[in-house]
Amino acid sequence: MTLFDELFSFAELEKVFSDEVRIKRMLEFEAALVKAEARAGAIPEGASRKIAEHCRVEFFELPLIATQAGQSGNVAVPLVRMLTESVAKQDKDAARFVHWGATSQDAIDTGMVLQLRDALGLLERDLAHLTGTLAALAEEHRATPIVARTWMQQALPTTLGFIVAGWLDAVLRHRQRLSECRARVLSLQFGGAVGTLAALSGRGPEVAKALAEELRLTLPVAAWHSHRDRMAEAATFLGLVAGTLGKIARDISLHSQTEVAELFEPAGEGRGGSSSMPHKRNPVTCAVVLEAAVRVPGLVSTMLSAVPQEYERGLGGWQAEWETLAAVVEATGSALAAMTGVIGGLTVFPDRMRANLAATEGTIFAEQKEKIGRPEDHLGAAEQFRRRLLDDN
Amino acid sequence: MTLFDELFSFAELEKVFSDEVRIKRMLEFEAALVKAEARAGAIPEGASRKIAEHCRVEFFELPLIATQAGQSGNVAVPLVRMLTESVAKQDKDAARFVHWGATSQDAIDTGMVLQLRDALGLLERDLAHLTGTLAALAEEHRATPIVARTWMQQALPTTLGFIVAGWLDAVLRHRQRLSECRARVLSLQFGGAVGTLAALSGRGPEVAKALAEELRLTLPVAAWHSHRDRMAEAATFLGLVAGTLGKIARDISLHSQTEVAELFEPAGEGRGGSSSMPHKRNPVTCAVVLEAAVRVPGLVSTMLSAVPQEYERGLGGWQAEWETLAAVVEATGSALAAMTGVIGGLTVFPDRMRANLAATEGTIFAEQKEKIGRPEDHLGAAEQFRRRLLDDN
Amino acid sequence: MTLFDELFSFAELEKVFSDEVRIKRMLEFEAALVKAEARAGAIPEGASRKIAEHCRVEFFELPLIATQAGQSGNVAVPLVRMLTESVAKQDKDAARFVHWGATSQDAIDTGMVLQLRDALGLLERDLAHLTGTLAALAEEHRATPIVARTWMQQALPTTLGFIVAGWLDAVLRHRQRLSECRARVLSLQFGGAVGTLAALSGRGPEVAKALAEELRLTLPVAAWHSHRDRMAEAATFLGLVAGTLGKIARDISLHSQTEVAELFEPAGEGRGGSSSMPHKRNPVTCAVVLEAAVRVPGLVSTMLSAVPQEYERGLGGWQAEWETLAAVVEATGSALAAMTGVIGGLTVFPDRMRANLAATEGTIFAEQKEKIGRPEDHLGAAEQFRRRLLDDN
Amino acid sequence: MTLFDELFSFAELEKVFSDEVRIKRMLEFEAALVKAEARAGAIPEGASRKIAEHCRVEFFELPLIATQAGQSGNVAVPLVRMLTESVAKQDKDAARFVHWGATSQDAIDTGMVLQLRDALGLLERDLAHLTGTLAALAEEHRATPIVARTWMQQALPTTLGFIVAGWLDAVLRHRQRLSECRARVLSLQFGGAVGTLAALSGRGPEVAKALAEELRLTLPVAAWHSHRDRMAEAATFLGLVAGTLGKIARDISLHSQTEVAELFEPAGEGRGGSSSMPHKRNPVTCAVVLEAAVRVPGLVSTMLSAVPQEYERGLGGWQAEWETLAAVVEATGSALAAMTGVIGGLTVFPDRMRANLAATEGTIFAEQKEKIGRPEDHLGAAEQFRRRLLDDN
Repeated sequence: MTLFDELFSFAELEKVFSDEVRIKRMLEFEAALVKAEARAGAIPEGASRKIAEHCRVEFFELPLIATQAGQSGNVAVPLVRMLTESVAKQDKDAARFVHWGATSQDAIDTGMVLQLRDALGLLERDLAHLTGTLAALAEEHRATPIVARTWMQQALPTTLGFIVAGWLDAVLRHRQRLSECRARVLSLQFGGAVGTLAALSGRGPEVAKALAEELRLTLPVAAWHSHRDRMAEAATFLGLVAGTLGKIARDISLHSQTEVAELFEPAGEGRGGSSSMPHKRNPVTCAVVLEAAVRVPGLVSTMLSAVPQEYERGLGGWQAEWETLAAVVEATGSALAAMTGVIGGLTVFPDRMRANLAATEGTIFAEQKEKIGRPEDHLGAAEQFRRRLLDDN
Repeated sequence: MTLFDELFSFAELEKVFSDEVRIKRMLEFEAALVKAEARAGAIPEGASRKIAEHCRVEFFELPLIATQAGQSGNVAVPLVRMLTESVAKQDKDAARFVHWGATSQDAIDTGMVLQLRDALGLLERDLAHLTGTLAALAEEHRATPIVARTWMQQALPTTLGFIVAGWLDAVLRHRQRLSECRARVLSLQFGGAVGTLAALSGRGPEVAKALAEELRLTLPVAAWHSHRDRMAEAATFLGLVAGTLGKIARDISLHSQTEVAELFEPAGEGRGGSSSMPHKRNPVTCAVVLEAAVRVPGLVSTMLSAVPQEYERGLGGWQAEWETLAAVVEATGSALAAMTGVIGGLTVFPDRMRANLAATEGTIFAEQKEKIGRPEDHLGAAEQFRRRLLDDN
Repeated sequence: MTLFDELFSFAELEKVFSDEVRIKRMLEFEAALVKAEARAGAIPEGASRKIAEHCRVEFFELPLIATQAGQSGNVAVPLVRMLTESVAKQDKDAARFVHWGATSQDAIDTGMVLQLRDALGLLERDLAHLTGTLAALAEEHRATPIVARTWMQQALPTTLGFIVAGWLDAVLRHRQRLSECRARVLSLQFGGAVGTLAALSGRGPEVAKALAEELRLTLPVAAWHSHRDRMAEAATFLGLVAGTLGKIARDISLHSQTEVAELFEPAGEGRGGSSSMPHKRNPVTCAVVLEAAVRVPGLVSTMLSAVPQEYERGLGGWQAEWETLAAVVEATGSALAAMTGVIGGLTVFPDRMRANLAATEGTIFAEQKEKIGRPEDHLGAAEQFRRRLLDDN
Repeated sequence: MTLFDELFSFAELEKVFSDEVRIKRMLEFEAALVKAEARAGAIPEGASRKIAEHCRVEFFELPLIATQAGQSGNVAVPLVRMLTESVAKQDKDAARFVHWGATSQDAIDTGMVLQLRDALGLLERDLAHLTGTLAALAEEHRATPIVARTWMQQALPTTLGFIVAGWLDAVLRHRQRLSECRARVLSLQFGGAVGTLAALSGRGPEVAKALAEELRLTLPVAAWHSHRDRMAEAATFLGLVAGTLGKIARDISLHSQTEVAELFEPAGEGRGGSSSMPHKRNPVTCAVVLEAAVRVPGLVSTMLSAVPQEYERGLGGWQAEWETLAAVVEATGSALAAMTGVIGGLTVFPDRMRANLAATEGTIFAEQKEKIGRPEDHLGAAEQFRRRLLDDN
């Protein structure tokens, strides 16, 4: 655990994106690889079974892998070497078939894809959860009047239900996006040294098919080792989600200002305290979500900058993805979990909303009523739209 | 035309994304708005017809709009005022119904969406064209051996057809992405002052439906004035495309190096000349495409940074989209058009590929043949995959 | 003029960074080059004089240069060709010495540096102006109590003078930074085809020295054609300035909220109007400044991404600088001019500050007085610091 | 140690930027604070001594701090609470003076500045080391001919010494930049709750002065809690350094291509091996440096995006700095250390340079000799400039 893990990440994501899990998923690839190869008759069944038995993360020393990765330029080289040595102690012949026909990038990329699958699963669950919470909140406050603000100035009346329905609408679009990009992102990487799987002497496609089945991943028509749009797409999708979460957090923090005081994030035990000003109630969770919204765009630009990789394996661009994509997933996933908590326990002060509205309503409706409508029109229209949104989904 | 228009943009895009077209599309919104409102019985049929007649870009002075935009904070305020004055000269009563129930952002956002529709249309056409050219090239060179390079070092044999098929595969994914995000991006913006369409006194939804039909845009369940994921998604999609184009351009420019000399972009008349070194043949078009690939990621991060907008209208974030999204479209669309030209006229030197391959083949296959396969395996495997890719699509 | 020029740029900057000025500055380079070469005896005095006479922007057709730039990959190639043709019509022999020993990049980079000099000059002037306006405002409100807000919540009392002094302090740091980076940024680019000035047969250093004198630019020890940290530094400096301007604009827009109503930007004639809500007073200028603060970070990242350029001339990276650096200068310079106007005419409502402070003062000071001090301590401390800041500068 | 620590970071930096050191530096702030307060008579001498004795990182459980940071929104709140409890067990009266008059941000920011001081110290040392190695290399190869390449095409002759001198020149500029920004960056943060130090009842300035002396940091005229240009400047400086390192790494990796084969990074034991292609020698260290050059620009844009923070303490922006700035320091510092190693052991193949040059020299000099000079002119000119550069520094 690092110092910021409790603040900016959350326990479940940690379990799918930690260093240990990274190694575990790569070993999962190695195990599935030899199983698939045995199924395709490319390596002996016995060797396959023996190798698979050694593909357990607890058999490996992570610090040793890390140290050797510094020499070889990636984590897979030492991992495969250690796996080979480990198998060789038991069965020299079987050891020859470890990582058979594969290259480091196959293990690293597919391992990352397996991690992404778990992460996207959590995300999907949390987006669904957030959808439910937002829909309930929109329903509950379908008739709660509040002033809409444009240019950070009071504008015209609306309802809290309508505002919340707007947040919901954006979240629903993200669920749609996720369902669309999922198969492209969760795709097997398997091409051998340069993408041709030549070392498998003609059995490449058969092994690839079996391997995709073993791992329940999309079987792509070709390896994508130097075509990184799949990984970059995962990042851009998460970037859009982080943006919407930031929008909601920004709204709530604005509504929470001392002078506005309409909405507050739930005050967890000890949450929001100040070391020098004990009277304050700080929107700590909104800050965490906004932190993600500030950080993620730069990380996404890195993923996009890394796409134009050289020839059949990138030099610098590929390596830049490793920590960057993990950071995007961690930041966005944690912000989503945090925001789901905020919406679930949001404190609403309808009286303050009414009071703030009253403060200017006279001015607002003094002139040009025809053009901007009456207050009741606004509430009615907001309700019309809110209902339509909830009905549609 | 600006100094860089011929270099970094191309004529057709200029026609859908110029300042003049920006105004034209906003006027298209204003005309369709009053038509829709007349259909819904919200304004008189006669007023609608008269207003629509004035919605022609040639009636407006762009420099005047630009100057007044500096005062009002956006382009729509002076445009609507001028339109109103123009109609009023002919019919005072009709003039009252100009922009009826709408807000500046409705015209600006929907105008931008209409521009995006044309731009995405060109993009779709060019992606389709590029697909065809790449498929033909992959077919033509299905048996042309070339050395694959990883870490910028010669690695193992493959075929040019296989490399080109890899480019093609990425382009096909972009076509898929475009077809998925199209409806979300090409969506009507219409909400009035704060999203509720209250000034239309209950006729809001009906007018919105008619307006979406008039403009042939998706009718969203609610206005998305302060939820910018739709616009940001357009940018992220384009960012992925720019990345792939940059990858292809990087590959070609590497293959074009004097010492490699395997592929060259077509030498247009006068293209690639050097003021001080007349003997050189510079990959000018690749440079233009790489320029886009370098620029677009930062622009995409701006679009994502702009998503968390305040309350019911953003302060700074919304405004930041205007020039940024236009720049993303222009850079990516122009790079695509340029790359389509490059692939269509690519000069291939199979002899040099063979010579470069021969230079190291001895070393490559001296050891561990079993693990990396024989040269003919690589060519065969490359062909297997290439065929699969072309068959699948 | 483009549609957004009045909104996001300002007239004076337009005069130093327009396309026309870009060509003008490149011609200034060409004229100074032949003068320097004549001084160093590298070319005949007469030829030099004749060439210099033709280096006038009004003799050139910009659209033609733009069109041909699309062929040659940059603006300098057609410009030099046209200049040569123009001189040749009058004197064939003299025409041979046009652009003598130089390369396109020399003209383009040095031309850009000359534009930057003018832009940094305006920036310096405006930073100085802003310093004065902020100091006066800090002085005027040295005893105006206001509540300080942290986490967007009311915290403890301070003075408006102290807050303004904080803005001032940051602006002063930018003046210091500008004085430090100026010589590095405003540096001659002159290296010939590959940086060695070999075509000048030993007279290279002498010509370079004379050329730097002619143009009053720093003479660098070597050409920096593929070392772009100088241009990137200009962008990062401007990025820091844009950040501070965004901070001030964000503060003012928060203080301007309907419920806070403590500070307002000056209401220019027609500025801040709303097409659908005539009662509102929108912080239009703050939006313009925030637009720059949102846009510039992504543009700066592009400039940094472009630094690692290939060999002795970049492919893509160099080209990406042209529009990006211009956009950074335009956005930041315009935001600075806009903010200078805002501070000069800021409307201050001390009564509202007092009222907002009173709303919570009781709570704030109810407990732990010892730890957080008394109200008068805060005002006194704020004044102490403010005085120190103003005295120091 | 994380999986990528050996690959992308290096041991010495780890010692100044780890989580443990983060806490250690914050405790250093707390200890110096009470010392300074005792010196200024603001708290009793005895309490000060007792508190300082408890400010030792080994007394604290990091995972506990991390867990509680999740509640309070930052690391300082639990740290100060634990410190207070720890002192209270020994001396209840002394415990009252822990963190006296300070706020969390004072400890967090100043702690970060202390970490930055150590990191910049390492950077300064390594830049100096790199300067020396580059100067020696430039000297050694002052007469080694090599072809200069523009647009990734062979252009004209130069010397390796000249190319290396160009790298050196950029590195020297970074040393200059570091010496200029050092005092601005290494600046005490001390302002109490809202910047006024009001809880110190008039003794604020005196305590601040003593505290800056204790910590050997610049004493700023005012706290900079919500003015983040100092931290952003550190990031932009590092971004420029990462760019130059990326440029050198890109050059070396291009010169290392199989077909070019002019320069190779040193082959450390086991470094550069490939799991599937044992014959290859991969530029692993260049990849690590390029990784930093790809990652850092996006991180810098985050730091710039975070500058416009709200009121007297940022919501989201400030928090986004914590991991981002650490990542910038780690990536850039590690790339610098890596590149210093590369230059120190660079393998140079002058014969290949000559052979590559010979391959085109005929063509190059066939025409227009007058305009581009003779080969010997280029070598002579390169040497002239190289000498000037080395003499100047």
